[in-house]
Amino acid sequence: MIDLRSDTVTKPTAAMRQAMAAAEVGDDVYGEDPTVNRLEREAAMIFGREAAIFVPTGTMGNQIAIRLHTEHGQEVICESRSHVLDWEMAMMAAFSGCQARTVMGDRGILTWEKIRRAIGPKIYYRQPTGLICLENTHNMAGGTVTPLEVMKNIWQGAKEVGLPVHLDGARIFNAATALRVSVAELTAGFDTVMFCLSKGLGAPVGSMLVGSTKAIERGRGFRKALGGGMRQAGVLAAAGLIALLEISKRLAEDHANARLLAEAVANEASAEIDLDCVQTNIVIFQLRGEGDAAAFCSALRQKEVLASAIGPHSIRFVTHYDVSREDCNEAAGVIAEQLRRV
Amino acid sequence: MIDLRSDTVTKPTAAMRQAMAAAEVGDDVYGEDPTVNRLEREAAMIFGREAAIFVPTGTMGNQIAIRLHTEHGQEVICESRSHVLDWEMAMMAAFSGCQARTVMGDRGILTWEKIRRAIGPKIYYRQPTGLICLENTHNMAGGTVTPLEVMKNIWQGAKEVGLPVHLDGARIFNAATALRVSVAELTAGFDTVMFCLSKGLGAPVGSMLVGSTKAIERGRGFRKALGGGMRQAGVLAAAGLIALLEISKRLAEDHANARLLAEAVANEASAEIDLDCVQTNIVIFQLRGEGDAAAFCSALRQKEVLASAIGPHSIRFVTHYDVSREDCNEAAGVIAEQLRRV
Amino acid sequence: MIDLRSDTVTKPTAAMRQAMAAAEVGDDVYGEDPTVNRLEREAAMIFGREAAIFVPTGTMGNQIAIRLHTEHGQEVICESRSHVLDWEMAMMAAFSGCQARTVMGDRGILTWEKIRRAIGPKIYYRQPTGLICLENTHNMAGGTVTPLEVMKNIWQGAKEVGLPVHLDGARIFNAATALRVSVAELTAGFDTVMFCLSKGLGAPVGSMLVGSTKAIERGRGFRKALGGGMRQAGVLAAAGLIALLEISKRLAEDHANARLLAEAVANEASAEIDLDCVQTNIVIFQLRGEGDAAAFCSALRQKEVLASAIGPHSIRFVTHYDVSREDCNEAAGVIAEQLRRV
Amino acid sequence: MIDLRSDTVTKPTAAMRQAMAAAEVGDDVYGEDPTVNRLEREAAMIFGREAAIFVPTGTMGNQIAIRLHTEHGQEVICESRSHVLDWEMAMMAAFSGCQARTVMGDRGILTWEKIRRAIGPKIYYRQPTGLICLENTHNMAGGTVTPLEVMKNIWQGAKEVGLPVHLDGARIFNAATALRVSVAELTAGFDTVMFCLSKGLGAPVGSMLVGSTKAIERGRGFRKALGGGMRQAGVLAAAGLIALLEISKRLAEDHANARLLAEAVANEASAEIDLDCVQTNIVIFQLRGEGDAAAFCSALRQKEVLASAIGPHSIRFVTHYDVSREDCNEAAGVIAEQLRRV
Repeated sequence: MIDLRSDTVTKPTAAMRQAMAAAEVGDDVYGEDPTVNRLEREAAMIFGREAAIFVPTGTMGNQIAIRLHTEHGQEVICESRSHVLDWEMAMMAAFSGCQARTVMGDRGILTWEKIRRAIGPKIYYRQPTGLICLENTHNMAGGTVTPLEVMKNIWQGAKEVGLPVHLDGARIFNAATALRVSVAELTAGFDTVMFCLSKGLGAPVGSMLVGSTKAIERGRGFRKALGGGMRQAGVLAAAGLIALLEISKRLAEDHANARLLAEAVANEASAEIDLDCVQTNIVIFQLRGEGDAAAFCSALRQKEVLASAIGPHSIRFVTHYDVSREDCNEAAGVIAEQLRRV
Repeated sequence: MIDLRSDTVTKPTAAMRQAMAAAEVGDDVYGEDPTVNRLEREAAMIFGREAAIFVPTGTMGNQIAIRLHTEHGQEVICESRSHVLDWEMAMMAAFSGCQARTVMGDRGILTWEKIRRAIGPKIYYRQPTGLICLENTHNMAGGTVTPLEVMKNIWQGAKEVGLPVHLDGARIFNAATALRVSVAELTAGFDTVMFCLSKGLGAPVGSMLVGSTKAIERGRGFRKALGGGMRQAGVLAAAGLIALLEISKRLAEDHANARLLAEAVANEASAEIDLDCVQTNIVIFQLRGEGDAAAFCSALRQKEVLASAIGPHSIRFVTHYDVSREDCNEAAGVIAEQLRRV
Repeated sequence: MIDLRSDTVTKPTAAMRQAMAAAEVGDDVYGEDPTVNRLEREAAMIFGREAAIFVPTGTMGNQIAIRLHTEHGQEVICESRSHVLDWEMAMMAAFSGCQARTVMGDRGILTWEKIRRAIGPKIYYRQPTGLICLENTHNMAGGTVTPLEVMKNIWQGAKEVGLPVHLDGARIFNAATALRVSVAELTAGFDTVMFCLSKGLGAPVGSMLVGSTKAIERGRGFRKALGGGMRQAGVLAAAGLIALLEISKRLAEDHANARLLAEAVANEASAEIDLDCVQTNIVIFQLRGEGDAAAFCSALRQKEVLASAIGPHSIRFVTHYDVSREDCNEAAGVIAEQLRRV
Repeated sequence: MIDLRSDTVTKPTAAMRQAMAAAEVGDDVYGEDPTVNRLEREAAMIFGREAAIFVPTGTMGNQIAIRLHTEHGQEVICESRSHVLDWEMAMMAAFSGCQARTVMGDRGILTWEKIRRAIGPKIYYRQPTGLICLENTHNMAGGTVTPLEVMKNIWQGAKEVGLPVHLDGARIFNAATALRVSVAELTAGFDTVMFCLSKGLGAPVGSMLVGSTKAIERGRGFRKALGGGMRQAGVLAAAGLIALLEISKRLAEDHANARLLAEAVANEASAEIDLDCVQTNIVIFQLRGEGDAAAFCSALRQKEVLASAIGPHSIRFVTHYDVSREDCNEAAGVIAEQLRRV
C-alpha cells in the first residue's frame, strides 16, 4: 500500500523506536521527566520563545491556546475551512464557549484587511472579538502557504487593535520549508504557536504549544484539565526530539513528491486542479462533472494506493517520509490511469 | 422625535397600561399566574401548537430552543447574518456549547439546497449537525420574507435527514402579513417557534416560545436556569395578550410606511437601495461612495428623526405603531433633504 | 387561602399597580428607560455602591455575579444548603463552568475559619478557588441571619487572600431589619450584592445586582447573554421602586408573625423546632417520628392554609405582607390543631 | 531515592521498553493501530464488557464517562474527597456543565442509603441528578476498598431509580487484589469503568474506559474533542498490555509493603494512623499536635525518602513496583526515626 491519505499515518523510524526504548523518564505532572523537559526547551529555542509544552495532539494544543486567549462568550476569527472550525469537535464552543467568526480567504489565506472587517463593534450588547486564529500551511485549502509579509501585516494590525493571534502551525515546518525562512521568523508575531511532531515530522504521538512563560504555565493547567497530563511522557518526547531536530529538515522531498503527483493529475482531462495551490505536501483536486470521489478512492485502493475523499468530488493526497520518490512515481501512474477511466 | 431606530422602542398603549394595572396574577414559577397561563394558551392556539411559554426576551426564547434541540459539541446551521449569530452574545456557544455553521442566503433567505450542503458528514471524529435555525422575517437582510414554499422544502428536507428546525420568528407576524397567510400555516413544519410580543406587536416586555408539550415543559427548566422564572409575570402577560390579539392585525400599516420611506430614499442619487428587499417594516440602504452612516444619523437626529447606522455606510429604519403615517411623511421629507446634502 | 408557602407569592399592591400603569418608559437595552435608570440609581445609593442593574430574577442576578468574579474551571465556596447550589439549576457549572466547594455552616452561617480551610492549594494541577458566595438571610437554614462581625471577619480574610466575595442577599432587608443595621453597613465589604424586589419587598418581578461601575457595566453584557435585556422594563421598575423605598421598611411585622407561628409549633409535641433559628420571616420545623410533611401540607390546604414540604419530614412557612397578623393568628390555630392530630 | 509520593512515578520496565520499541502501529484515529486494538480487546475481555477505549490519562477517562452519562445542568453524586472532585480541574463543571452533589463516606465508602438521600427531587425548577460516580480504591481516604456487597446494593438501587453509575477505578486492581475477587466481578454493575495502566500497573502513560459498545463508540468522539485522539498510540499500548496482563498480578506485594510502613508509623507516638484504613498500597497518617507535614517530608527527603504532604498535618506514602521490600524496610526505619524527632 502507498498511503497518501494523510501525513498522520507515518510510522516511527528505527531511530525513534530506539530512542523511545532508551528514554530517560520521570513523572511529567511533577515536571520531572528529563526528556520532556529537553524537548520543551528545544522547541522553545527553535521558535525563539520563552517556553513550550508537550501535548498528545494538535487539537489539544490549539484548544489550550484558544482557551488561553479568550473567555466564554467571545468570538474567534478564523478562516472558513480552518481545522479549528472543521475538525476539532466544536471545542471552540464546547470547551471555550466561543463562537467562530468565519472569513473566507483566497486559497485559505487571510489578510489583515479581511480580518479587520470581521472584528465586532465594541458595544455591550454584542459579543466581543477575543482572538484571531490562523493556519499555516492551510490544510483544507491544499497545504497553501501564507507569506511572511501577509503575516506581518496581520501581526501589526492585531497589535494595534489589541487582539491576540494564535497560529495553528500543525504543518508550519512545511510552510517554512516552502518559504525558505526559519519557523522562528515565520511565527515571530504570534502570541502562541501550535505545531505537530506527528504529521510531516513523523513522530508517533505529540504536538507542542510555544509562547511566553506565563501563557505556557497557565496552559499546563488546561492540559491537565483536558486530560493531557501524562506521566512518563518522555517515551514519546524521545521520538519527538528526533522529529523536531532531524525529520523537520527533509520536508522539501515531500513537496517535490506532491508536485509530481499534482502534475500527473493536471495532465488528465477528467480532473481539475489549481497547480498554484500545490505549494507543500498536499494535493487537492476535483473530479469534473459528476465524478464520484469516494468511488475513485475505492478504485485506487484496489491498486494499492490510498487517498482521501474530502468532498463529493474532491480528493486529497498527502506526501510524507513513509512514501518515497519511487512510491510516488508508482502512485502517479496508478492515479493517471484511473483518471483516464473516470 | 420620530424614532425609526427599531420597533423595539414602542411604548405600551393606554389599553396595555390599563390591562397591566388590572391583571390577575399569581406565582408563575408554580404555574399559578392566570394571565400568563391564558397568554400561553392563546399563543399555542394561534400557532396551532400543544404548548407555549412566556419569556422575558427573544434572545432567551431562541437560546432555550437551541439548548432544547442540541447537545454540547454540535453544529447549528444558520444564515450568515442571523440574529442568533450576531446579536445573542455568542450564547449558542457559551450556553449550548454549539458551533455555528453559517450559510449565506440571497437576501437572507436560505434554501434546502444550501442547507443540505452545510450538514456535516457522520464520522465520529467530526462534530455532528444538531439543528437548523431560520429567521423570518430576516432582520439584518432588511426584513425580507422567506416564502412558504421555500420553508416547506426545508421542513421536508430536514425531516428526511432527521434534523430539528427552529424558527427565530421575532417578526413572524410581519412575514405572515406580507405573505397573507396565517402564522400557523407559515410555521407549521418547525419544531419550535420563537416570536416577540415586543417589537412590532408593541408589548413592553416579552416573547413566546411555542412547540410540543414535551419541548415546552423541558424549556421551563432552561428558562429557570437562564434566570427567566419570573414570579407575578401576569402584569407583563396582560400587555402581551393585547399585543398578540390586537396589535398583530395592524402591521400592514407599518409595511406601507416602510415602503413610503424606501421610495423617498430610492429617489435620491446619494443612496443605494434594493427596493425588492423592502418587504415588511424594515428599510436598509447604503450611502454611496464614502458616505458616513454615523454622521448621517447624527444629522437626522438634529432634525428630530432617529435612525440606526448598522455599518460604516449602512442605515436602517424600522416602522412601528409609535410612528404614524404622518410621522413617516415628515421623516421622508427630512431624509430626502439630508440625502441631497451628502 | 392563607399562603405561607413563600414570600414569592405576594401580589402587587394597589400603589404598585398604579405606578406600573403610569410609568415613564423607554428602551432599556439602549439605557433609555427613565424608571429603570431611577431604580438603579436608588438601589446603588441605598447600598452605598457606584452602580446597580435591574434583572428579572434573583437567580439571574446571582449567576451574573458568579460569572463576573470567576472563570471556567474554578471553585466557588458556598454553604452546603445555599440557594446558588440547590435552586439555581446548576448554572454555576452550566453557565460559569465552576465547581461548588461546599462548607456546612451552623444554622447556615459560615465563618472565616471554615471558609479558609476550603480554599484550594495553589498548585497548577488543581482547580483554584475563584469566589466566596454567602447568603444572608439563609433561606434553607430557616431565614437565619449572619451577624455583622462574622461578615467583617470574612471580608477581611477574603481581602487578605485576594478572593472576591458575593452576597446572595435575596432577603438582605430581612437580615438588616433583624440586626437593626442598614443594608449598606451590612454589605459594605462584598464585591457584589444581589437582592430581590420580589419576595419580602413585594414587587411582582425583579431583583437588583449592585457593585462597582466596572462590574455592573460588564454585568450588562451577561444580562443580555442570559436573555435579561428587556425593553420597556420601566413598567416593572415602577413597582420595584415602591418595594425598595417603602415595603422594605415594614419587615419587622413579618418577623413578628413568623415568631407567632413558630411558637404555636413549639407548643406541640409532634413537632420539633429550633426557635433560635426563627430570626426573620421563615419558620422551618420537623414532624417527629415518621410524620409525613407532604401529607401534613395537604391537610393544611384543606383548611385554607398553604405551606411547603421541603423534606420528607420538614415543613416551611414564610410570612410576607399578603398575610396579616390576623391571618397568622388564624393559621397558627389551624396548624396547632393539625399538629395535635399527627 | 525511595520514592513513595505516588504510584504514578513508576518507570517502564525493561520488558515494556522493548515492547514499545517493537510495537506494530497504525493511525489510531482511523482505528488502524493493531496494538491499541489488541489492548482494547483485552481490557474489554478482562472486565467482561463489550468494548474499551485507550486514553492518555485517568482524568480523560473519567471526564469522558461523566460527559457520556450526563447533560449540562445536572448533578453528579460523588464522595466528598473523590478524585473527580478534587483533582480533575473542575472539568465536571467546565466540560460537562454538571454540579457535584457531595456525600461524605466513612473511610470514603459510600452506601446506597447515603446516595439515595442525595438524589434530587424531580421538579422542573431544580437540577436533576444525572450520575452516581464511585471510586474504588478511594485514594484520598487512604486506598480503602468498597466491598462487593456494598457495591451490589448501589448497583441495584441505582437501577431501580434509573441512574447510571460510573466507577473511577484508577486502582481497581488493588481493590480486587485486596478483596480476592476478579475485576470483572467487582465492577459488573457499573455502566462504565475507568482504570489506569499507569499507577500500580506501571505503564508509562495510559488508562482505559470500558463499557457497552454504544457508550465507547460515543466516547471516541469525546476523546477526540478532549484532544486524546493520538495517532500511532500503539507504542504506548504495547507497554499497557504488559501492565494489564502481568503487572496487575503482583499488587499483593505492594499491599504488604504498605502494611509494613503503616505499622512502623503506628508504633510512634507522634503519629496518628487508622490501621484499618491501610487496605491496599496507600498509607495516610497525621502528625499529632502542630506537626508540620511539609517540614516532615522535607526532612525525609534529606534522607532519600520521598513522601507527599496532603494536608497541613497529613502525609501519604504509596507503594509500587519501583520500591522493593528492601526499600520499604529501609524507608520504615527512616520514617520511624524521623517521627521520633517530631
